[in-house]
Amino acid sequence: MSLPLLLDHLRKTAALEQVSALISWDQETMMPAKGSAQRAEQSGAVAAVIHAHKSDPRIPEWIGAIDWNKLGDKDRANVVQAQRAYEQATRIPPALAQEIARAASAGQVCWAEARQKRSFAHFIPALDKLVSLKREEAAYLANGEMSPYDALLDQFEPGARTADLVPLLESLREPLVSLRQQISEKPQPPALAGHYERQGQLSLARQVAEKLGYDFAAGRIDLSNHPFSSGTGDDCRITTRIDESDPLDCLYSTIHEVGHALYSQGLSDPFLPGADYCSMGVHESQSRLWENQVARSRPFAEWLFPAMKNIFPDMEIADADSFYRTVNRVEPGFIRTEADEVHYNLHVLMRFELERDLIAGKLETAGLEEAWNTLFAQYFGLRVEDVNKGVLQDIHWSVGLFGYFPTYSLGNIYSACLDEAINKAVPDRDKLVASGNTGPILDWLREKIHSKGRMLAAPELVCEAIGKPASADPLITYLKTKYGELYSL
Amino acid sequence: MSLPLLLDHLRKTAALEQVSALISWDQETMMPAKGSAQRAEQSGAVAAVIHAHKSDPRIPEWIGAIDWNKLGDKDRANVVQAQRAYEQATRIPPALAQEIARAASAGQVCWAEARQKRSFAHFIPALDKLVSLKREEAAYLANGEMSPYDALLDQFEPGARTADLVPLLESLREPLVSLRQQISEKPQPPALAGHYERQGQLSLARQVAEKLGYDFAAGRIDLSNHPFSSGTGDDCRITTRIDESDPLDCLYSTIHEVGHALYSQGLSDPFLPGADYCSMGVHESQSRLWENQVARSRPFAEWLFPAMKNIFPDMEIADADSFYRTVNRVEPGFIRTEADEVHYNLHVLMRFELERDLIAGKLETAGLEEAWNTLFAQYFGLRVEDVNKGVLQDIHWSVGLFGYFPTYSLGNIYSACLDEAINKAVPDRDKLVASGNTGPILDWLREKIHSKGRMLAAPELVCEAIGKPASADPLITYLKTKYGELYSL
Repeated sequence: MSLPLLLDHLRKTAALEQVSALISWDQETMMPAKGSAQRAEQSGAVAAVIHAHKSDPRIPEWIGAIDWNKLGDKDRANVVQAQRAYEQATRIPPALAQEIARAASAGQVCWAEARQKRSFAHFIPALDKLVSLKREEAAYLANGEMSPYDALLDQFEPGARTADLVPLLESLREPLVSLRQQISEKPQPPALAGHYERQGQLSLARQVAEKLGYDFAAGRIDLSNHPFSSGTGDDCRITTRIDESDPLDCLYSTIHEVGHALYSQGLSDPFLPGADYCSMGVHESQSRLWENQVARSRPFAEWLFPAMKNIFPDMEIADADSFYRTVNRVEPGFIRTEADEVHYNLHVLMRFELERDLIAGKLETAGLEEAWNTLFAQYFGLRVEDVNKGVLQDIHWSVGLFGYFPTYSLGNIYSACLDEAINKAVPDRDKLVASGNTGPILDWLREKIHSKGRMLAAPELVCEAIGKPASADPLITYLKTKYGELYSL
Repeated sequence: MSLPLLLDHLRKTAALEQVSALISWDQETMMPAKGSAQRAEQSGAVAAVIHAHKSDPRIPEWIGAIDWNKLGDKDRANVVQAQRAYEQATRIPPALAQEIARAASAGQVCWAEARQKRSFAHFIPALDKLVSLKREEAAYLANGEMSPYDALLDQFEPGARTADLVPLLESLREPLVSLRQQISEKPQPPALAGHYERQGQLSLARQVAEKLGYDFAAGRIDLSNHPFSSGTGDDCRITTRIDESDPLDCLYSTIHEVGHALYSQGLSDPFLPGADYCSMGVHESQSRLWENQVARSRPFAEWLFPAMKNIFPDMEIADADSFYRTVNRVEPGFIRTEADEVHYNLHVLMRFELERDLIAGKLETAGLEEAWNTLFAQYFGLRVEDVNKGVLQDIHWSVGLFGYFPTYSLGNIYSACLDEAINKAVPDRDKLVASGNTGPILDWLREKIHSKGRMLAAPELVCEAIGKPASADPLITYLKTKYGELYSL
């Protein structure tokens, strides 16, 4: 009897988490300007209720009464996740959790102010407070079983440990720096010029989203300052943004979020934690696979170019091949979210290194800007002049997200692993994609990834999907091959 | 110490209720088509949490420890409302509450099906189930202190009793029937013909809403099947609908909802139950006052006509006076929501009579259609041919709303009382309104009604605002004067 009671409780908890996500979506897309303070109270009230659900003392009783030998894979995953969520919810003293929530809220405000003033110094007190609170939280979460940073990382990438991630991610550095160097000596394909009006961009974004399999009857696209995806199951919404001088921003942001949403729409049950997305790294592998390995491929350019030309006949690009070259321009830049495939992971590596040191106490916030600029010069050969394009560019740390950045690179590594396997599983892939048919790719992902939920940890899930252990090799090979051909290296 | 603890708990409960309202708004305006089933789980989970908050056993303990003599008016209202909400939440067995929620959800689906089939018989089983559950709920709520129907009524109109409402509402019947009769013998002003495109209608609706004082920084207007208002404080949203052959539907629906929203935006604290709207009748008095006494007045027509002509230059109405006559056409019809001021309360009176008999067990659902048609012939002199324009027209009973209808007429009665007092308090009202300045009317309502919350029950609130007991006389005088002049009676 205790399993059904537990599952019912988990379903209600998930429903409340969906509500929490929905009111956040509303806040970014629909909420009137004055609504912020009231919304903060609403979000706080829902968060408190979710915390009470996750730390319900009946959970360990129910779990204790379950005969694990009788559990199938799915229910085992549900029970394991319930246990994990219970531990995470009960390990942190409520007063600390509330203080972190407040500090994160204040941190975001202070970060926005600091950006307005272009002053890292303005941000230091708020960030310092957050870092020390997160160190404290990490110690509680770690529970003597792992390092504090690993405890934070584990929240986003269950089971991942720095000791494994550092060699994996660092193995990208040398090949990427070398590739970047070789490309920088070659001539660049032209960038996209001209004016692209809003309605056309939105209409193209919708057309592409639908083509890739995004179900509009279970989702919608709106505008927000920063594109994001939100929701699970039959209500998965995405947002995009429009820059009239750069239609590729809207287009590829949309595709990225569609990649996330296809995963969320493909979960086998939106209410059970064992069926939830596997990890942030796996989530990011989906968005990046659709954005890069699919939508920045030559076959996709063959489909996309005429579709885009149809909406924007004045676009000064002659053919699909030129379009393919333009959407794959490699250029060093300051901003992670605007980085090309070659530079992107170098941005992440830097942040991974800095946040490990921050949480471990090897680096204090007062020294963060200098440390950032030093590393940036080292990785990119560029000097940061504008702090908004330097250490103040990402929102993550301002809201207490430490341990999140490495999942971006893990996502890139996984996406290349999956891409390699899809190439084998769908031999006529290029022909299909060139005709706008990505269905077999989605089918493969649905079967191998989306439907599996959390039955396996991320490395095992990917290993089972691709038939060998995940590594950085497919990503390095993919990048060297693609950009070697593009830049005649 | 117990008062601050109680108030903090009440604030959290209110925040959760706001979340519940927001996800309902989303359901009607934004939610993708497939989202319904998941949304039902989400709404159910939030409802359960709100119920747990309202029936928290600490509430009577906190209240018991409060020294009532030390309470100011506002805190007294908060404590009284907390007590009331606690009693309502704990009187109904949770299993019954859940059964009603399910039956209401099924009832709405069945009602929609019955409308598709144009068959009341199809609706009977679901309605019968609901009626019997509501009778049971009413008995629990009444707690031996009032009749079951009064217990339902009391949820929407605290303190109201059938014994007082019947003579008050019935006193409208004879004058209305007589007025309707006299008007029917007179020639009609022309109806509005032509085509009015969507963007123009929406733009006019927004212009009028802003003119009346609706704060768009604390609200927004969207489209939905049935116009409604939602939210409190700094996030009060309204919806409207568009019929391209009838711009007055969009216009006056918007003004009606703006009337509700002005009340909600004017509450002194969106998180405290003592500051909440006084009753449904008072809420409706606000929407009706703006819709009818303000926006269907001759001075307002003088402002509105040129504004509308500006957007729709082809509108075949010559001047403000003709416009005034057109927006005040009196015509018998089958549909309550489309009824003019003279007929509207006759629709309500019928429903009030029928639902009293249903809850009292004097009328069974199987006989409802016949009873409806008999009464309709008697009140309106019309024979119902289409059940969708008869007993199946309103959603209320299908979702278990019994005891709600009379608050519509109470709202009309109160609105005329307030209107009469505003005429005295704002002597140059007509001149101001004709110039588009309704600010002094809103100021008066903010002071006398909106800011008072639930410190007084509705009859006392209105009595204090107008300086005498509320009665149906101002409404009858208003209608006789206005339509006597319009139709040269």
